[in-house]
Amino acid sequence: MYLKNTWYVACTPDEIVGKPLGRRICGEAMVFFRGPDDQVTAVEDFCPHRGAPLSLGFMRDGHLVCGYHGLTMGPEGKCVSMPGQRVAGIPAIRRFPVIERYGFIWVWAGDAELADPAKLHHLPWAEDPQWAYGGGLYHIQCDYRLMIDNLMDLTHETYVHASSIGQPEIEEAAPATRVEGDEVVTSRFMENIKAPPFWQAALRGNGLADDVPCDRWQICRFTPPSHVLIEVGVAHAGHGGYDADAQYKASSIVVDFITPETETSIWYFWGMARNFKPHDAALTATIQAGQGKIFSEDLEMLEAQQRNLLAQPERRLLKLNIDAGGVQSRKILDRLLEREVQERAALVAARAAASGTAAGTAATRPATVIHPVTQGSH
Amino acid sequence: MYLKNTWYVACTPDEIVGKPLGRRICGEAMVFFRGPDDQVTAVEDFCPHRGAPLSLGFMRDGHLVCGYHGLTMGPEGKCVSMPGQRVAGIPAIRRFPVIERYGFIWVWAGDAELADPAKLHHLPWAEDPQWAYGGGLYHIQCDYRLMIDNLMDLTHETYVHASSIGQPEIEEAAPATRVEGDEVVTSRFMENIKAPPFWQAALRGNGLADDVPCDRWQICRFTPPSHVLIEVGVAHAGHGGYDADAQYKASSIVVDFITPETETSIWYFWGMARNFKPHDAALTATIQAGQGKIFSEDLEMLEAQQRNLLAQPERRLLKLNIDAGGVQSRKILDRLLEREVQERAALVAARAAASGTAAGTAATRPATVIHPVTQGSH
Amino acid sequence: MYLKNTWYVACTPDEIVGKPLGRRICGEAMVFFRGPDDQVTAVEDFCPHRGAPLSLGFMRDGHLVCGYHGLTMGPEGKCVSMPGQRVAGIPAIRRFPVIERYGFIWVWAGDAELADPAKLHHLPWAEDPQWAYGGGLYHIQCDYRLMIDNLMDLTHETYVHASSIGQPEIEEAAPATRVEGDEVVTSRFMENIKAPPFWQAALRGNGLADDVPCDRWQICRFTPPSHVLIEVGVAHAGHGGYDADAQYKASSIVVDFITPETETSIWYFWGMARNFKPHDAALTATIQAGQGKIFSEDLEMLEAQQRNLLAQPERRLLKLNIDAGGVQSRKILDRLLEREVQERAALVAARAAASGTAAGTAATRPATVIHPVTQGSH
Repeated sequence: MYLKNTWYVACTPDEIVGKPLGRRICGEAMVFFRGPDDQVTAVEDFCPHRGAPLSLGFMRDGHLVCGYHGLTMGPEGKCVSMPGQRVAGIPAIRRFPVIERYGFIWVWAGDAELADPAKLHHLPWAEDPQWAYGGGLYHIQCDYRLMIDNLMDLTHETYVHASSIGQPEIEEAAPATRVEGDEVVTSRFMENIKAPPFWQAALRGNGLADDVPCDRWQICRFTPPSHVLIEVGVAHAGHGGYDADAQYKASSIVVDFITPETETSIWYFWGMARNFKPHDAALTATIQAGQGKIFSEDLEMLEAQQRNLLAQPERRLLKLNIDAGGVQSRKILDRLLEREVQERAALVAARAAASGTAAGTAATRPATVIHPVTQGSH
Repeated sequence: MYLKNTWYVACTPDEIVGKPLGRRICGEAMVFFRGPDDQVTAVEDFCPHRGAPLSLGFMRDGHLVCGYHGLTMGPEGKCVSMPGQRVAGIPAIRRFPVIERYGFIWVWAGDAELADPAKLHHLPWAEDPQWAYGGGLYHIQCDYRLMIDNLMDLTHETYVHASSIGQPEIEEAAPATRVEGDEVVTSRFMENIKAPPFWQAALRGNGLADDVPCDRWQICRFTPPSHVLIEVGVAHAGHGGYDADAQYKASSIVVDFITPETETSIWYFWGMARNFKPHDAALTATIQAGQGKIFSEDLEMLEAQQRNLLAQPERRLLKLNIDAGGVQSRKILDRLLEREVQERAALVAARAAASGTAAGTAATRPATVIHPVTQGSH
Repeated sequence: MYLKNTWYVACTPDEIVGKPLGRRICGEAMVFFRGPDDQVTAVEDFCPHRGAPLSLGFMRDGHLVCGYHGLTMGPEGKCVSMPGQRVAGIPAIRRFPVIERYGFIWVWAGDAELADPAKLHHLPWAEDPQWAYGGGLYHIQCDYRLMIDNLMDLTHETYVHASSIGQPEIEEAAPATRVEGDEVVTSRFMENIKAPPFWQAALRGNGLADDVPCDRWQICRFTPPSHVLIEVGVAHAGHGGYDADAQYKASSIVVDFITPETETSIWYFWGMARNFKPHDAALTATIQAGQGKIFSEDLEMLEAQQRNLLAQPERRLLKLNIDAGGVQSRKILDRLLEREVQERAALVAARAAASGTAAGTAATRPATVIHPVTQGSH
């Protein structure tokens, strides 16, 4: 149960340098490649000739060449050439709308005609030279909503990340959750605490003392379909906490883009955006390595939780106050999923009316027609 | 098809030193831990908060703390505390009766109100200082009854364990099988034979000549639900064989506790109890290593046999005279399984009468109630 | 959907030297061994005693001894002895007709009474001392027909085997396909080309210049049930190409025996037969190593194609002119499969008439009868 008519992070540009990338997203096997004019394209990872994965092929002159028999795929999902063949009759394969922005390749996993670039999640920091970003990608066997729950309740830091960002004061500070339209915000503020190891390092990285009392904050924001951006930071106590002047604090945005692969697996794009020392590449690398280690600690727990839930599907989970962020996020998702069902029904009806036939889905997913065989003995 | 209202070996004390142990038994995911006052407890391996396995958590002051968000579980399956939460409304999880005795942790996998310590298999040697014990644990992908068959027909030693305890004389000595109530005894006696390598070592370990003619015996006893204890030994020939004076023989009890994990997998606790040189720890270690190697030889055969039987479920197996021990053991199991069905039906009726409702199972497996969310925005 | 009443390559003689071999063919678990008088036998890999795989046993005096309890199986699928047992009542297990010829063990996977040695694929080169053969075996997770398609359209060499036998001229030369009874022949001829690396080596191996213009040919012949033999070669240009005198060419036969294991996996016996320098064992080894490397390049593609097709079973594949060889081969297979259905229906009717009962299959697959237990307590 995930939204399909929405933009998900599919991959990063470095994953498609000079080669195609096969990746399943929302149940759809896709292949991503950089076509003529350097535009990124996504089509089905299924050669219309014999069904081989196009992602096993290679790039030639901005076209994707199937590695089995050389069918050459253009950016529109249309075969542009094939040795010894007339290609006009070769059916097109499904194309998925793609946008490259903010350092990511985004894909619209559902109905292409509904794809709207204006609906892309706006990320001002990603285009601001005063900010730096470092991150990574994990493949995790869990429902994407378990990861949303995880990120909207940072109480788990005390347990899962005890040696880095966890500290007892987190669970002692009750979170406050509010709903803002389709977004959910859960905030926690801690005052006069000792900074945990990760934040001590960040303070030092920012040229600040790491052994003085601090204020700490965590402001988690869920944005559909499955993004959680978390403003996190510490300030030397007595300077206004979250609102302290930049010279007294180290702060950043934890970035989490959670892309469903299947109902029970995700591509988890994690990272950190910061607006201090943005040009310090060594610092970026250090933070990235530290965050990567911390975020890997969630994997075992989430996958074990998923197995437990699959084994006992009838069990209901508790909804405590600390779970309010996830609970509210799921309510919004339920509402949007319901709306998507209606939109798709309307779309099917519109397609049927437009084509004058009942075969209303032909526009986006053409049936694979059998091409007349030119060989005489056939 | 395994009994559930009975005591099975779940683990050994060394497996829960300072940490919880997750183990599936009779299809139930359980977590074992040593609670306050050092008593061993088993509860569902499912945190009532978000379904994480409690076995990924840690021990604190005799309580099991969930490693995800810190829910603290007490020995009765009731949450005793959770940071920032009122815990009275958190539903209890299922608790499994446990006994620690004879060097093992035993669990009652079925209905808690029927658990009867008096039904524990009595093992006098395990509490007698004149006896020593060493053993191990194997995880095997087979129906527990295939292992019972294996142990109640030691003809296989000639083939599976040819280099250690097997010898042609085994299959030349016809076994005799008798039923004693719910137990089955299959015995084999061989006279004037050469001791095989394992027993030569045992004779030497007991200070006896290893190259003289011997009498050898194997007396396999099946006790429900799935225990096979085998009196085995050799005596210098001419001194009475099984009944020979201790100075002429090396004998011991092969101990096999077979605990179903699922319908087609087991936890196999194997070991050997001996009453010679009981304080010789080096000898215990030597025997344990030798037995571990020998018993590992059964794994491949049993798992391959299981795969064959699953692939051809309609095939019936032969029941030769050598199979009588297993055949009779299965007859007893079938009878006890039938009795358990009746007992559980009576129990459900009694529960319904007691509660005055149809929801008769509430006593042992409480439905997970949704705890009121205290957070206002919910 | 594979033929069963036909001869498939099961294994090579070296696989059953001094030991049995377990192998699943056409869904049937079989065990192959060399019985008394060195004749090869195949029976079910299922001991009639307790269902253990007989292939885990060992050979003794030309009989196969079960590794679990010593049941000794004779070449007819009848137990010939078992320690301490009367074996007359032990039911026979299914036997599969076997032929050893041409350096292979062939098995008839279907109804034994229809097995006809005259239907064995005739391979003159395999018995001609002027020819040498080297080959190997790969286990591949794909429908056997995907491998037939692969071999009947060598266009893929340009892509899958670009560094060894592929060259652009292959796809520029349109193939011609013709049907000859139950066989299909697809041929390609290229003139005045540069020999690719594999063929340069073969020219050198044959004492010929490797840097002169050549003619090249590929004549693929499909023979049911799943054999593709390919005449391949190069000749110095201007000497008649395929028909050139032996002193001007290097040619050979690529041998492909594709034996279904299951609906989606195969045992792929590949090799090369050549009639130049047939006694040069070092050359045979060199060719075998080179071919093995090249043919391993197909595995990833075929297995990925299979996964794609299983994920989208409703998708139809294109049938271009280059696919005509596979398309025609599948048509023949469809016709033969239909004929086999009718033959088997007739056989069942004949069996029923012969036995005077409805249990018409008893002749080839005896029901496993429960042998009376001789042990009194049973």
